Amino acid sequence: MLNNKITELLQIQYPIIQAPMAGGLTTSKLVAGVSNSGGLGSIGAGYMTPVQMREQIREIKQLTSNFFGINLFIPNEFNISQDQINSANQILQPIREQLGLHRNDNLEIPEFNNVFEVFNEQIKTVIEERVPVCSFTFGIPSREVIRELKKHNIILMGTATTVREAIENEKAGMDIVVVQGSEAGGHRGSFISEDQENLIGLMSLIPQVVDNVSIPVAAAGGIMDGRGLMASISLGAKGVQMGTAFLTCAESGANEIFKEEILHAHEDQTVLTRSFSGKWARGIKNKFISEMKQVESIFPDYPVQNTLTKEIRNTSSSLENRNFMSLWAGQSPRLAKKHSVNSLMKKIIKEAKKINNSN
Amino acid sequence: MLNNKITELLQIQYPIIQAPMAGGLTTSKLVAGVSNSGGLGSIGAGYMTPVQMREQIREIKQLTSNFFGINLFIPNEFNISQDQINSANQILQPIREQLGLHRNDNLEIPEFNNVFEVFNEQIKTVIEERVPVCSFTFGIPSREVIRELKKHNIILMGTATTVREAIENEKAGMDIVVVQGSEAGGHRGSFISEDQENLIGLMSLIPQVVDNVSIPVAAAGGIMDGRGLMASISLGAKGVQMGTAFLTCAESGANEIFKEEILHAHEDQTVLTRSFSGKWARGIKNKFISEMKQVESIFPDYPVQNTLTKEIRNTSSSLENRNFMSLWAGQSPRLAKKHSVNSLMKKIIKEAKKINNSN
Repeated sequence: MLNNKITELLQIQYPIIQAPMAGGLTTSKLVAGVSNSGGLGSIGAGYMTPVQMREQIREIKQLTSNFFGINLFIPNEFNISQDQINSANQILQPIREQLGLHRNDNLEIPEFNNVFEVFNEQIKTVIEERVPVCSFTFGIPSREVIRELKKHNIILMGTATTVREAIENEKAGMDIVVVQGSEAGGHRGSFISEDQENLIGLMSLIPQVVDNVSIPVAAAGGIMDGRGLMASISLGAKGVQMGTAFLTCAESGANEIFKEEILHAHEDQTVLTRSFSGKWARGIKNKFISEMKQVESIFPDYPVQNTLTKEIRNTSSSLENRNFMSLWAGQSPRLAKKHSVNSLMKKIIKEAKKINNSN
Repeated sequence: MLNNKITELLQIQYPIIQAPMAGGLTTSKLVAGVSNSGGLGSIGAGYMTPVQMREQIREIKQLTSNFFGINLFIPNEFNISQDQINSANQILQPIREQLGLHRNDNLEIPEFNNVFEVFNEQIKTVIEERVPVCSFTFGIPSREVIRELKKHNIILMGTATTVREAIENEKAGMDIVVVQGSEAGGHRGSFISEDQENLIGLMSLIPQVVDNVSIPVAAAGGIMDGRGLMASISLGAKGVQMGTAFLTCAESGANEIFKEEILHAHEDQTVLTRSFSGKWARGIKNKFISEMKQVESIFPDYPVQNTLTKEIRNTSSSLENRNFMSLWAGQSPRLAKKHSVNSLMKKIIKEAKKINNSN
């Protein structure tokens, strides 16, 4: 029941993908731990330099000989206006002060050409280091990039939040599409429309995508256990991608306060915000999200806003101050537990088999 | 696999409840058709007078000897200010004109005492007419009402959109709780907080509710076929409640244009609006929803706004003008088909059994 096109393509025992959460969360121990437990570990490399990527890929290869994946962010065009940056900095200044941070007017604001150059370097690194699986968020890479990766037999996974985005991923040649439901924590992968008024729940999204593409579908969003895995398979997905469930594992890079916040959160305490990064993302509601709510629409686009809030997020995290951290989490935090990766994987499979036998 | 506490309590063959959609959608043929096909048909009586209820209950009893249900709206306190009503009427006036409707300043604005009196009459009617199952939306009835209904062996079902609302339903003595995911069409049943920034998808909502209540859970929202039924059961629900799937059936009270709108809609075309009724509800985005978006927060509460827009909705519907109708639908319209109720029920069960055998 759990062997299918996804386990075959990804050369894994169970159709469970650890979500590639960016920002230092996917430690080598986490990634290798998942791959060594029969799933697909994945590096969230969205914010990494090619050098950092190479280092971690090599480290993981020391820890596992199994397949693992790496995720990159597709560079999106964005507008920069100095006025908008100034307004944002002005709004953020009182928070910086609360955290003891000085005014910083010399932040290196990203430019599209640079971001695009780094992306090309990232792709080169993936090829040179022979990463078995490469996934994408915020869009679809160019034909040339896809052709190059395929020439090196790298398995490609795209992200979709609507049927149309899934169809575009299939057309472009992705081997697998991850469909991200409204339940998902972290950044929305939407790329055709970033309008968030019509976020689609997995109960609706999975079957409608499955009916419209031929490539295998993996489901992401709120899935934390064997129940979510079997439900996704019933809906027509071939596998699942889980983020929050792995965040509270011993091996994850989330710090203790982040883990505790998830372990104590309720299902109705996560919300969407664009205040942290300039792109919509789901996290546990805290002071930053609440206070910025009224002004979030005026903040600059990703990755500019992400740069403007970076020091705030990092300092808040170091100080173990929940108020200004980006506490990304999906809508099922009540299902989060403290585990080792291996015991979490075993628990999921045991539950899935039990459901299968009881039906 | 499909026989459980819900089929036992509701005395049905399959754990499928037809959602009690208010506003003339649940014709006697639809309700009796579902009950005669092994599910639980339900009357959406939220807007009905006791006389209308009695008439339909008797009609249904002519068509089926099986169990069926009836749904009532719990009266919520609301504020009326003449200023707010005047502003709303002013905003609605251009739409009235487009539909050839005259200004109407003599609308009978509902008062809480009246609404509450009607509710008590509705309860009396349910008891007198011995309706086997009674469900509630927008809250939980008083202890006295619950005691009275239970004394007459009426099975009670509540609606919840969060874990806490489900727990409150269990505490109050409901026999079954319907959990409404973010995917669901029509009115949100939320009653502890009506804030819609944290709508929870079924993939997250079902398992977290199941872990926190002992009464059986039925899942509602975006479920249209055997895949959704089996997914809900995998997540721990004992059954499902389906609305949109029944709306496009031959027996439903939706007019042709409403059915066609659903049959041609995509998963990302439904949105939440409070402009039609003063309560949040999900429907297919049309001119009314788009144009009222900017001002929806100033409209009066339910049921006042519902009264103010009634003539607009009815006239638009009679004129087969999609622009100003409330086209309630969940997030899975691509799964909608033209069926008879009986063939839809058979298809769902066939699909569910196939999934069960293939896992």
